[in-house]
Amino acid sequence: MSEPGPGLAGALALIADVPDFPEPGILFKDITPLLADHTALTAVIGALAAAGRDDSGRPVVDKVLGMESRGFILGAPVALALGVGFVPVRKAGKLPRETYAVSYALEYGEATLEVHRDALEPGDRVLLVDDVLATGGTAKATMELVEHCGASVHAVAMLMELGFLPGRDAIGDVPLTCLLTV
Amino acid sequence: MSEPGPGLAGALALIADVPDFPEPGILFKDITPLLADHTALTAVIGALAAAGRDDSGRPVVDKVLGMESRGFILGAPVALALGVGFVPVRKAGKLPRETYAVSYALEYGEATLEVHRDALEPGDRVLLVDDVLATGGTAKATMELVEHCGASVHAVAMLMELGFLPGRDAIGDVPLTCLLTV
Repeated sequence: MSEPGPGLAGALALIADVPDFPEPGILFKDITPLLADHTALTAVIGALAAAGRDDSGRPVVDKVLGMESRGFILGAPVALALGVGFVPVRKAGKLPRETYAVSYALEYGEATLEVHRDALEPGDRVLLVDDVLATGGTAKATMELVEHCGASVHAVAMLMELGFLPGRDAIGDVPLTCLLTV
Repeated sequence: MSEPGPGLAGALALIADVPDFPEPGILFKDITPLLADHTALTAVIGALAAAGRDDSGRPVVDKVLGMESRGFILGAPVALALGVGFVPVRKAGKLPRETYAVSYALEYGEATLEVHRDALEPGDRVLLVDDVLATGGTAKATMELVEHCGASVHAVAMLMELGFLPGRDAIGDVPLTCLLTV
């Protein structure tokens, strides 16, 4: 991770702490004040997109994948910034054509993520974009979906990482960019 | 609505018909092939953003609102294109701070949409962005949320309109841009 510039630091400072949401004892990180600020959002999109560029700034990914639903807000602009297409990774039952599906454990029960089978070409290199890396369950499931398509994950770019959870371990050896660790 | 250029027409041609989804007899319009094509997505974002500009091309809105969740994919890039912030309109229980909420009827049961109370300033002019105008229930509920904030809806911009449903009536006198009527 490169040192954040003043623009990025100011953007990240807009993320608001909301105690006891969605339940008592949880400190929720609210990104809506950042999204509402054009300068801040621009800085964050630029910093996330950097994870899809080589050292000379050239885009090196074929697609950007965003995870439903806050990953849609960040992922689509990152795809446009990199000059590539956007692929939505959706919750079960939302995508209309043939999908690959991966289920993963939540604290209570499980969740399923899907991607269209033809969303990626074999050999495609992709960038995964989401807002929060927590346990890493969503990211790991998405990485498995990419593998099912015969594509490969070039990098994972997250707005923030909950440093007290082992999400980073779930990513394995894939390059991980987190703009903020909380 | 201005005449679509060749780029936009080609983009809209990528929307795929999927019969019998989510249930028998429904012809689902799948926008994922359009999202996956950078040129097509760029053309669509530009055309939607035009609804937030005056005749000389100057942005005249203060915020772009996108409705969960496909409206997130389109709305965030439109906000960036217009140089304004993005405000997510979310399903019930997702936003962590004080919200305004509006419920509306679905075919079976009802749905609730929410926006943070401080998401808009009184007097703000906003552009609503979503993928499909069907019955207009989502758009109308979002317009009510904007009114609760003391702001006003400058225009509504939709990727497509289901012409056999009365969504256009629900919008009333607010300028409506639909890039495609199916």
